[in-house]
Amino acid sequence: MLYLDNSATSWPKPDSVYLKMIECMKNYGANPGRSGHRMAMQAAEKVHQCRENLARLFGIADPLRIVFTANATEAINLAVKGLLIPGDHVILSSMEHNSVVRPLKKLETLGVELSIVKADQSGKVSAEDIVKSIKINTKLLIVTHASNVTGTVNDLKSLGRLAKEHKIVYMVDASQTAGNYPVDVGLMNIDLLAFSGHKGLLGPQGTGGLYIREGVMLDTLREGGTGSFSESLKQPDFLPDRYESGTLNLPGIAGLNEGIKYILDTGIKNIQNHENQLTRYMLEGLGEIKNVKVYGSRNFEHRIGVISVTIDEKDCHEVCRELDEKYDIAARGGLHCAYLAHKTIGTQNTGTIRFSIGFFNTIKDIDEALKAVKAIAGS
Amino acid sequence: MLYLDNSATSWPKPDSVYLKMIECMKNYGANPGRSGHRMAMQAAEKVHQCRENLARLFGIADPLRIVFTANATEAINLAVKGLLIPGDHVILSSMEHNSVVRPLKKLETLGVELSIVKADQSGKVSAEDIVKSIKINTKLLIVTHASNVTGTVNDLKSLGRLAKEHKIVYMVDASQTAGNYPVDVGLMNIDLLAFSGHKGLLGPQGTGGLYIREGVMLDTLREGGTGSFSESLKQPDFLPDRYESGTLNLPGIAGLNEGIKYILDTGIKNIQNHENQLTRYMLEGLGEIKNVKVYGSRNFEHRIGVISVTIDEKDCHEVCRELDEKYDIAARGGLHCAYLAHKTIGTQNTGTIRFSIGFFNTIKDIDEALKAVKAIAGS
Repeated sequence: MLYLDNSATSWPKPDSVYLKMIECMKNYGANPGRSGHRMAMQAAEKVHQCRENLARLFGIADPLRIVFTANATEAINLAVKGLLIPGDHVILSSMEHNSVVRPLKKLETLGVELSIVKADQSGKVSAEDIVKSIKINTKLLIVTHASNVTGTVNDLKSLGRLAKEHKIVYMVDASQTAGNYPVDVGLMNIDLLAFSGHKGLLGPQGTGGLYIREGVMLDTLREGGTGSFSESLKQPDFLPDRYESGTLNLPGIAGLNEGIKYILDTGIKNIQNHENQLTRYMLEGLGEIKNVKVYGSRNFEHRIGVISVTIDEKDCHEVCRELDEKYDIAARGGLHCAYLAHKTIGTQNTGTIRFSIGFFNTIKDIDEALKAVKAIAGS
Repeated sequence: MLYLDNSATSWPKPDSVYLKMIECMKNYGANPGRSGHRMAMQAAEKVHQCRENLARLFGIADPLRIVFTANATEAINLAVKGLLIPGDHVILSSMEHNSVVRPLKKLETLGVELSIVKADQSGKVSAEDIVKSIKINTKLLIVTHASNVTGTVNDLKSLGRLAKEHKIVYMVDASQTAGNYPVDVGLMNIDLLAFSGHKGLLGPQGTGGLYIREGVMLDTLREGGTGSFSESLKQPDFLPDRYESGTLNLPGIAGLNEGIKYILDTGIKNIQNHENQLTRYMLEGLGEIKNVKVYGSRNFEHRIGVISVTIDEKDCHEVCRELDEKYDIAARGGLHCAYLAHKTIGTQNTGTIRFSIGFFNTIKDIDEALKAVKAIAGS
């Protein structure tokens, strides 16, 4: 199958991901942090390795400030519910995913104030608009690094500067960029970085995480056994244990570690360049097909390999079914769990057909996809 | 290594678990429930298969009432925080794990009332003592099926009857029994069943779940993308989507499915009998070693393969280090994330050395362990 659904989850993974997950399960599949025997220690060591590699990739000084979660959604929930209390004000962009919007809409019913700053037609949010929304009780600014609908990349550095100036906690949802676009928490002044492990980071599903800058205090979302201070009926205070109750997804983390190593070895710039080249090629190709409307930024520098289109008046789900059944191409049709983003670009009633490019895609793949779109568009 | 730490996580897993996880990742590693193409549909079908097999194992009529979580701790947090509001009263046994006690201690600070019913010396909680604790505002009774410290099994059926009579929601923590001791939510009248996927169920780490009886309404612990009703900024109401925001751990669930199939094929009674036989054998052997004190029930019928001992005045961690380094045996020393249980049996200051038996252990393993304990005990 020609897989162009990498925004949902990347596929395939590097071979080392599969291999090391099985090696881990077969050779040292004990419970990390729960016992002192060698197998458990080796498991704990693998978890720490993954934290160190994540820290390297994101420019994080202390790997222990990275907390593993089941997915980016859990990381986002932990961040917003851990930070915000009734009376607080939070600013988010209109390009945020439901993983940001839905928990905030729930918090709104409990007395948290929301301001949704509308992005421009390309999906980019402007610093000026954000500044206008800042209030005396603004505690948090949340911005997606790149939209999962348009692929448009926000200028994290300038938004980070703005947050710092106004003493607002700055949270970035890097679900679509971690592993395929540079992220540096120091350079970008990021306080909370939520990321998915199974997309650009090339790890298996069931992995994700949250970086929490020192000094940012979050309440816990779940409490329980941590393997530490068992005699205390209260959750421990120190990271990462405070936020990692329950057995960790060891094989998942071992796989994620290999995904990140693959990225570090390949070089994030090379990954970015490859995906960028394919994205340009596909956008140019799509631009030549009649009846196809392409959404998102035309600035290739600030774009990832997420391409949303509509074809004439055709139903997006129907198009994707045809791509699947007739052309053996995996793409996603619909609203992609991001209704506000569709409202922003005007596709809330139709959804879009989304092609999302991964590092293992080739020019040949794009040629095939373009051929299929052309045939479906009847041009 | 001779692995006797199956209460922390079972090891090894059946070969089919490793094989099918990789097969899943390589052949249909898409995002289940997110797209409509064949790979995503096959992924979703695998997730549903696992739900069906869990339902079969636990006597659950509707597989959609089973929610996947990252571990039992998350399931327990979802249950207690989803159900209890300030002013409610909850009864728990003193044998509960920190995964139950710590979230409840947090809820206590928010106005939820707790009654901790002390179990007897063997670790068993009595129905009479529970009845005495029932108040007008009692909403929930939580009991562990079997203690992770003593291995003692509670009489779930009679406690379930009691809960039903008093119209109290009945929650069981089956972390230590799911997959190696019969659980039937109908027969036992269980309203909420929290389980771990990587212990007795023989699946990989990163898996667990919660069964929620129809009619029991829980608030959500996290909200986000569900792949359904993307146009709604509110979390969907129907199960399992309501409680499964974010990408599921597909390879983990594919592996868990194989673990459960292995159990269904082998027969839970056969698993129980094998582990029971080894447990009896080990308890008899330990009984003959001077200076060794064994905790937990002497009723072999109501016991799982979790054996806690102390050896004279020896430090438990030191003993486990010796077992590891000198005898190549993996056991766990300390409080096992269950301080109240240790207080109940009087080992809160010392902890215990815990041997936990799995289905793949043999009589020969137990002989080796007994030999090592004998040598360490100096008898």
